[in-house]
Amino acid sequence: MTVTLEKVNVEAQAIEAKKAAKALLTLTTEEKNQALITLADTIEANFETILKANEADLQNGREKGFEDAFMDRLALTKERVFDFAKGLREVAELEDPTGHALSDWTLDNGLNVQKVTVPLGVIGMIYEARPNVTVDATGLALKSGNAIVLKGGSNAIHSNRAIVEVMHQGLEKTAIKKEAVQFIDSTDREATQQLFTMKEHVDVLIPRGGGKLIQAVVNNATVPVLETGVGNCHIYIDVDADVEKALNIMINAKTDRPAVCNAAETLIVHEAWLNENKDALIAALNENGITVHGDDTVVEMIPGSVPAGEADWKNEYLSLDIAIKTVSDVQGAVDHIEEYGTKHSEAIVTENDAIATTFLNLVDAAAIYHNASTRFTDGGALGFGAEIGISTQKLHARGPMGLPALTTVKYLMRGTGQIR
Amino acid sequence: MTVTLEKVNVEAQAIEAKKAAKALLTLTTEEKNQALITLADTIEANFETILKANEADLQNGREKGFEDAFMDRLALTKERVFDFAKGLREVAELEDPTGHALSDWTLDNGLNVQKVTVPLGVIGMIYEARPNVTVDATGLALKSGNAIVLKGGSNAIHSNRAIVEVMHQGLEKTAIKKEAVQFIDSTDREATQQLFTMKEHVDVLIPRGGGKLIQAVVNNATVPVLETGVGNCHIYIDVDADVEKALNIMINAKTDRPAVCNAAETLIVHEAWLNENKDALIAALNENGITVHGDDTVVEMIPGSVPAGEADWKNEYLSLDIAIKTVSDVQGAVDHIEEYGTKHSEAIVTENDAIATTFLNLVDAAAIYHNASTRFTDGGALGFGAEIGISTQKLHARGPMGLPALTTVKYLMRGTGQIR
Repeated sequence: MTVTLEKVNVEAQAIEAKKAAKALLTLTTEEKNQALITLADTIEANFETILKANEADLQNGREKGFEDAFMDRLALTKERVFDFAKGLREVAELEDPTGHALSDWTLDNGLNVQKVTVPLGVIGMIYEARPNVTVDATGLALKSGNAIVLKGGSNAIHSNRAIVEVMHQGLEKTAIKKEAVQFIDSTDREATQQLFTMKEHVDVLIPRGGGKLIQAVVNNATVPVLETGVGNCHIYIDVDADVEKALNIMINAKTDRPAVCNAAETLIVHEAWLNENKDALIAALNENGITVHGDDTVVEMIPGSVPAGEADWKNEYLSLDIAIKTVSDVQGAVDHIEEYGTKHSEAIVTENDAIATTFLNLVDAAAIYHNASTRFTDGGALGFGAEIGISTQKLHARGPMGLPALTTVKYLMRGTGQIR
Repeated sequence: MTVTLEKVNVEAQAIEAKKAAKALLTLTTEEKNQALITLADTIEANFETILKANEADLQNGREKGFEDAFMDRLALTKERVFDFAKGLREVAELEDPTGHALSDWTLDNGLNVQKVTVPLGVIGMIYEARPNVTVDATGLALKSGNAIVLKGGSNAIHSNRAIVEVMHQGLEKTAIKKEAVQFIDSTDREATQQLFTMKEHVDVLIPRGGGKLIQAVVNNATVPVLETGVGNCHIYIDVDADVEKALNIMINAKTDRPAVCNAAETLIVHEAWLNENKDALIAALNENGITVHGDDTVVEMIPGSVPAGEADWKNEYLSLDIAIKTVSDVQGAVDHIEEYGTKHSEAIVTENDAIATTFLNLVDAAAIYHNASTRFTDGGALGFGAEIGISTQKLHARGPMGLPALTTVKYLMRGTGQIR
């Protein structure tokens, strides 16, 4: 049933990962932390090897004429490689998410029941051409006692291969078997697809990247998926919004880092507020070089704006473009978000607490803000230490996923012969 | 894209459910509890209508020559219908799983972050011909603030239709819209399949029934699935097992209710223990009318046993059959469970705590027992009050799923103009 690809045998690698995951179950927190520190040291010591491999990817990228943003995410420097190592050391400092008794009680018959956090097992990480994910995901997986199967974007394959080789060298000196980190060394799509259905050996798939990648995994995988990250986020300016707060929040959410998933893509604005504060809004948009795609009211009111269509309401621009929609009340905002939002981060700006409560209660998203920018939906900003991604689904984990998202539970039942 | 079936429009029903789920968000715990009590009253008052409809299903079942166990699960009596009502009243007594702040902290910049439990939204329940699930699942869904779309087995369609009609009558008198309970009134497989991919309107699918039903959902759904219940459970009798405990536990796990998912299907036994306690084991098996399918050692040692093949190690007999496998150490037991277990419930019997710890640590299952019967993996037995099923997957919920499994979280972020 398994097709063996030219260079790789994905199933064999997943089986090796599973075995290594079993061995990880017997390690102490200290052994895992020490391994992460050794990995960090090894990466630093071998940064030149990694940079040399990265040059091959960059060369290839230049030949293919990739856009600047793509090349920027692909490019490594000594500083960036040392940041990978720093990230691993930070993960070593975090609390071990496994081995916690979430509850512990004894039944009347004397049977003790403990609900304990344990590693998921084997994590399949499917991601685009961002070499940092290779290190970040490995660090989080190992710290939480999981093995990982890495399938990165083809355009970073030289960098990823070199990083994994270096990490394997590092792991040789630790209590963690190097088989706990598997690298699918293939640019063949079939290799990725094999992971989708490898339920016996892979416990969860985590896709990280654009909407297309994520949907391909969600639609084709029988292995459970932790869906991450597409963010079509909205700011709703209510009739009772403070003007300064509203403009600050809108500008920050749109322009601070337009390319990230917690950036705002659509402004929903109460028509009465717009009538009153049109000039201030126009000035703020112009000062920040924002292109407006608006509904009829907006196009009439805001000079230079272009008409927004269905595609705009759905669009994750990831640029200095914004769609603007006018509504006559909070329900209009809630309905628009229900139709077009991606359940990531949504904000209301208002001084009316009752309206804010309605919004917080009715909007269905991972994070819902009252009078603050959507940019805080981030593991780092919230103090989670590190994140494997931002979940936009409802099961298992929602919002920024730190180490606990990489665990499951076991019920441990200790008795003295109890029967039913 | 949506195919309208002869009698039903599944998408339209799912959309109605989604709307009703939004309305549920604004109800108080008291309003939900009162609705459950009214449902219970209405079911009791209309028990004859339900029994009459059930007679049509029973008649159909007799004509089709269904086996006794099937007919028993299908058959309703006044007492059973009143038990449904009692179940609803018990759910009304349980703690509301929504609206709990699981954490609450304030960032240095003053942004308050609350992680709050909220309903999942719309639950798609796909189940076999067991009318009790229609009521039980509805009660748990409504209590946790969710709407539910019910797709029961075709052979219970008259009973299910009558139960839902009665519940709709009841809901008319409550704060919950009757659209929160949708019944797919069709025996067409296509109707079930439409639910599989209705990601926009259905938040989770919960299949309850045999392995085939569950695998059909897992393999074809793009809506996230809470996988429940197939239990190929093992009892491992270690060399250091107390004879009385071992036999009591094995017999209880096998014979107390052979047809349930937490019953034992395979006995793994240490060869040295078997050599020493062969006669006691044989006596216990014979007394309880258990048929043994064994490996070579067992067939040689236990009179009347038949050779076990690959199919036996995988089989969820759900009868008084047991497979018996001999091993030379705990690792042999762990490996056998890893290969053939369904990650439900697994037990070790031993007086050696170190060996028990190894087993508890290495076996990958929802519930792992030391010196107790696997029969305790049950929401009722563990004091959860009620369960929607027993999860054998690792994400979101594992083991018996009570009301909290039907919730997700939202991060509510309350600020005063914070930007990043």
